[in-house]
Amino acid sequence: MTKSSKAVRGASKTARGNTTIPADLERFLSDNDPRIHNELFEFLRIPSVSAKSDHNADTRRAAEWVKASLDKIGVPAKIYPTAGHPVVVGEWRNAPGAPTVLIYGHYDVQPAEPLELWTSPPFEPTVRDRKIFARGSVDDKGQIFLHIKALEAHLATRGTLPVNVVVIVEGEEEIGSENLAAFVAEQKKLLKADAVVISDSAMFAPGLPSILSSLRGLAYFEINVQGPKGDLHSGSYGGAVVNPAMALARILATFHDKDGHIAIPGFYKKVRAWDPKIRKQMRSLPFSDKTLMKETGVSALGGEKGYTTLEKLWIRPTCEVNGQLSGYTGEGAKTVLPAKAMAKVSCRLVPDQDPAEIEKLMKAHVAKVA
Amino acid sequence: MTKSSKAVRGASKTARGNTTIPADLERFLSDNDPRIHNELFEFLRIPSVSAKSDHNADTRRAAEWVKASLDKIGVPAKIYPTAGHPVVVGEWRNAPGAPTVLIYGHYDVQPAEPLELWTSPPFEPTVRDRKIFARGSVDDKGQIFLHIKALEAHLATRGTLPVNVVVIVEGEEEIGSENLAAFVAEQKKLLKADAVVISDSAMFAPGLPSILSSLRGLAYFEINVQGPKGDLHSGSYGGAVVNPAMALARILATFHDKDGHIAIPGFYKKVRAWDPKIRKQMRSLPFSDKTLMKETGVSALGGEKGYTTLEKLWIRPTCEVNGQLSGYTGEGAKTVLPAKAMAKVSCRLVPDQDPAEIEKLMKAHVAKVA
Repeated sequence: MTKSSKAVRGASKTARGNTTIPADLERFLSDNDPRIHNELFEFLRIPSVSAKSDHNADTRRAAEWVKASLDKIGVPAKIYPTAGHPVVVGEWRNAPGAPTVLIYGHYDVQPAEPLELWTSPPFEPTVRDRKIFARGSVDDKGQIFLHIKALEAHLATRGTLPVNVVVIVEGEEEIGSENLAAFVAEQKKLLKADAVVISDSAMFAPGLPSILSSLRGLAYFEINVQGPKGDLHSGSYGGAVVNPAMALARILATFHDKDGHIAIPGFYKKVRAWDPKIRKQMRSLPFSDKTLMKETGVSALGGEKGYTTLEKLWIRPTCEVNGQLSGYTGEGAKTVLPAKAMAKVSCRLVPDQDPAEIEKLMKAHVAKVA
Repeated sequence: MTKSSKAVRGASKTARGNTTIPADLERFLSDNDPRIHNELFEFLRIPSVSAKSDHNADTRRAAEWVKASLDKIGVPAKIYPTAGHPVVVGEWRNAPGAPTVLIYGHYDVQPAEPLELWTSPPFEPTVRDRKIFARGSVDDKGQIFLHIKALEAHLATRGTLPVNVVVIVEGEEEIGSENLAAFVAEQKKLLKADAVVISDSAMFAPGLPSILSSLRGLAYFEINVQGPKGDLHSGSYGGAVVNPAMALARILATFHDKDGHIAIPGFYKKVRAWDPKIRKQMRSLPFSDKTLMKETGVSALGGEKGYTTLEKLWIRPTCEVNGQLSGYTGEGAKTVLPAKAMAKVSCRLVPDQDPAEIEKLMKAHVAKVA
């Protein structure tokens, strides 16, 4: 690993030690480094928190910043209103016959709270150990900025791009992209492309360029077990009235077998058996269980027997409790027999698994074991 | 069931339709009914909430009220300070050769919150449907008052009691009687008695005089499962990092077998096999599962196979979850893999079971299945 390859998460210098960037583009980026650095900081300083309506003006300002940034480099852009935050689309279609690449990103960020956990102010980008710390620096302003600057390097140096490019930058990714599907459906022509590039996921390792080919999907459930109409005294009623919390624990315990396989009948029916070649490639990646254990602070890993950790994380579905609540959870003891018990449960799904189908299987299983 | 037998929970008239109270005592109680009624109301109006220090003056006033009440009827009493709320002890030992009966009660009450759920103010006794509603009316002011008035009826009518009597009324029952054991140990001579009468439990049924021979005890645990050092994203880590909430559910599911017996090895070792005669007596009581189901709002009862509901409630131990918390429990979905999961678990114990021993068995079992 070279020295420059360390500069990864939100770094001001892109990791290019091991890669081959043509000399003209490399020179442009080096010559313009301070200006580009300042532009990124300008973008990061806009508190475009999409979840909070008191930041609506900031969110709007971020959209305008992106539009101006695209216009400036020669990718004419427009701000499209939606029912929520606007979408910015820039188009450069001057390579007739060449394929069209759509680049997706988002200019909105998560709320910065809890503020007391920040070492430096969330909207004042700060460099520590050659990394830039700011809300949105890696999700997703850093990445969309990188794409825009790559386009700029090409256009400024060579006056052209090797492919046609559409850049779409939305402002509601952090709140579920509620208005994006409708926008895409309406703007089929504007967005027409041969390939889509999305840089809004984790990097596998510092200095290792990687392409993420799929992410796991989700089916999210809430299981509520209702017992007596109100909380009861466990001394007066315990032993005869069914305890909903205990009943729920027994239901959850049926979700996996002793080898960590999901025991909901039919759950794996559509799960792909991956090509041994791809599994071999995955095993060749620089990854160690020990690093993951250290990162998460656990003394052992778990999950499905027969699969490597990366396989468990990337190509195998899961069934997890995300939250659970029943009875008295405060300090000390209260001898309550809870009236109800709740668990939030979600399944991470892999290609070909259908959330609606998984919901059916889950419901049938719970009805059977309850 | 006679008409008067309905007046039970905190009633101003004691249920005496079916019982035989000697005519002289009955007459005294009838003649003095309005005064006795007013005295009870006076006692109930004192907000002697032992848990709240801002009620310390009220709690003290309740102790003084009890002392004055005993003095007045000819059972000289004294207030004994403790590290917490004082204990009142009245003594009448003028029946030489006769046994001594110690009557126990408490003048403190539970906090009245949540106040909005009260139909009438908690410390303004109100009669509805021949029942008195007030905080402490059945726990335990009503009962201790009843004993004092029974003593008064005897002493006022006959000038004597058939047995020696010690009345002890404490002020910390609702907060764990923390200072009572030390007081009893110090005051062995003062409290010496042949029998103890405690009226601080539930009545089995309206109009049915009953003697409670034992109550189930308690061993209370908190089980904490620690997973990663912080909450994780269930998409990025789920499937490889062990989920503490799921692990805890699996532990809890091992506490019972499919017949509802507690499956913690050794748990029943000291549980008494009751005399078939007593079990037969229990079955003869006016009790129906349907009534319990209606009272608690459940459509079916549960618990240990092979025992009646009253046996499950009275002579069989239990193991119940009292509370459970992990991960995200708010509105909507959050894809968190919780860092930890907590369950409060308690076992109701029956005669001969030792809480310390049950703790050992519980720990050993959890260590084995975890």
